[in-house]
Amino acid sequence: MGKKLFIPGPIDVRKEVLEKMSTPMIGHRGGDASTLQKSISEKLQKLFYTDSTILLSTSSGTGLMEGSIRCSTLKKAAIFSSGAFGDRWYKMAIANNVPADLFKVEDGKAIDIEMVEKVLSTGEYDVITITHNETSTGVRNPIEEIGDIIKKYDDIIYCVDAVSSAGGIKIEVDKIGIDICVTSVQKALGLPPGMSICTFSQRAIERAKQISHRGIYFDLLAMYEYILKKDYQYPSTPSLSHMFALDFQLDEILKEGLDNRFKRHEDMANLVRDWSRKHFEIFTDENHLSNTLTVIKNTKGINVSNLNKKLQERGYQIANGYGDLKEKTFRISHMGDYTLDDINELLDNIEDILGLLNKVY
Amino acid sequence: MGKKLFIPGPIDVRKEVLEKMSTPMIGHRGGDASTLQKSISEKLQKLFYTDSTILLSTSSGTGLMEGSIRCSTLKKAAIFSSGAFGDRWYKMAIANNVPADLFKVEDGKAIDIEMVEKVLSTGEYDVITITHNETSTGVRNPIEEIGDIIKKYDDIIYCVDAVSSAGGIKIEVDKIGIDICVTSVQKALGLPPGMSICTFSQRAIERAKQISHRGIYFDLLAMYEYILKKDYQYPSTPSLSHMFALDFQLDEILKEGLDNRFKRHEDMANLVRDWSRKHFEIFTDENHLSNTLTVIKNTKGINVSNLNKKLQERGYQIANGYGDLKEKTFRISHMGDYTLDDINELLDNIEDILGLLNKVY
Repeated sequence: MGKKLFIPGPIDVRKEVLEKMSTPMIGHRGGDASTLQKSISEKLQKLFYTDSTILLSTSSGTGLMEGSIRCSTLKKAAIFSSGAFGDRWYKMAIANNVPADLFKVEDGKAIDIEMVEKVLSTGEYDVITITHNETSTGVRNPIEEIGDIIKKYDDIIYCVDAVSSAGGIKIEVDKIGIDICVTSVQKALGLPPGMSICTFSQRAIERAKQISHRGIYFDLLAMYEYILKKDYQYPSTPSLSHMFALDFQLDEILKEGLDNRFKRHEDMANLVRDWSRKHFEIFTDENHLSNTLTVIKNTKGINVSNLNKKLQERGYQIANGYGDLKEKTFRISHMGDYTLDDINELLDNIEDILGLLNKVY
Repeated sequence: MGKKLFIPGPIDVRKEVLEKMSTPMIGHRGGDASTLQKSISEKLQKLFYTDSTILLSTSSGTGLMEGSIRCSTLKKAAIFSSGAFGDRWYKMAIANNVPADLFKVEDGKAIDIEMVEKVLSTGEYDVITITHNETSTGVRNPIEEIGDIIKKYDDIIYCVDAVSSAGGIKIEVDKIGIDICVTSVQKALGLPPGMSICTFSQRAIERAKQISHRGIYFDLLAMYEYILKKDYQYPSTPSLSHMFALDFQLDEILKEGLDNRFKRHEDMANLVRDWSRKHFEIFTDENHLSNTLTVIKNTKGINVSNLNKKLQERGYQIANGYGDLKEKTFRISHMGDYTLDDINELLDNIEDILGLLNKVY
């Protein structure tokens, strides 16, 4: 039996989805591949509420994030970070010799709207990156409000890392004005890791055309042009197994109904939050809580590693705090295809292991 | 039923291997992931006859090739090309602003040893790239002889694209002196596409340390350092599904015996070659024939697309010529887990469709 993974990805994958990973191979240059990839793209446009082109990449989300910043920055990128995954955008820029400045907020806080307004008003930047859901701190950043600021400018490409939110939290890409929205399949989409996805707006396409040295594998413009020319096929051989599973799972997601799916994530989040407030404290600013992950302050000084070891003996797994927040916090993810029952089962087991019901800890 | 794919990848994957793609998820930061990735690495060291570090990448081979040239070139790369896939190395260099010169031979010919000797003697280059098996022309390049030339220099990093050869043709990485040998799992290794592999020598590690701006996702040095520090784990979330299948398939390959596997590929190649000489001509220089793929000159002026359409109705698929060689040649791959019986079955069907047995065409 696989463990029940309540870590921020990979998460458990339903049996029916896993089975699709075993679909026999097809040629990646034939009509069957075109049909499959077109079908996936159309369903993802619904998920992202967008008319933008969908790009699929056989890689983790990191790859497409790297591609986005490399294919978009002519002047300089403004990287707004509320934690470790926000910082990663900055590292990507530096590693690719892309000019960038990093603007940070305190751990547990969301990106400050006024800071964004002030930074962009300098006119120095033509790209902005935001981590929608900061997996290290549990913050959901206000991408809608930030979108409103960006709309005042016409030359700023808006890149959003939605790796741990898309599929669990509503992201209206076109309405918000996101140019490149990146996600990965192993989080709220409920698939095995190995594929990432981004939306690619007309503005982003035009920008990429002005940029030389975009690399090869993550050259978003080359992918876009190939898709256009070759009927949804890709320059490099893709993971067809993931595509079979993704196509199936997107049907399941649309069958559940997007609003129902987002509501289920909200309900799971509320359950974990209430529980956390009862026994511990929530680490994150209460005004900016994520619906796919809760970061809990270890106010009782429990040994998180030990708790996780005991949980694993029972078939469950949660995540320790990230980086410097290890042992100071712990993290419970509630994303993908889990139900309220699954969450209750996990919380009951944690209570039982910690003896939370019987004693003052 | 899936088609029997005799195209140069993806090829058919055995049912037992496909089933492993459905293995339930594990956390990619836990001991189970370390054990799995260590196991794969040790088996791949046997396959490549090397003590070099093995790096696994969730991407096609293109990604790791791009990473190799970017992480190795301080002065300039000498790209030796015998066809479309050789040219691709050059495009990768240019797209990443890596200094490079392209040296080409005529389609169907192998890289000329004397040319390599002359080019390297200029002292201008510190990287050389060779396509072991040129999938567009069916050429197997003499990587051993080229290795002997490179050994005369101590500052040249030897990169080999073994995407369509590794697992089907013996490559003694350490003996030949290859620093970075790249392959993909969907060719002679017999897995679904979505993962690539490279060997990474100590010399290549030292070189990479001298290079700034190596990018993120294909930064071979960062992968190497992470593996060392985190017990075979990777910086980005990998395709665990491919790892489960790869670990299983490597056991199967080692069970078959490497020499037996290489001999089986040679036998399949001989069968297709004899058949080709009987009915058509071999396009490729007879002294440099690949054991995983045969490119056949369309001396009878058959309509290759039509032949393939009829073959597909019967459940088989071959490949048309690549690029400019379309219709002028056609390609039959014989790699992975196929047997002589499979090849005979395909050839019988081609003969039957073309009426080769009954009439002079």
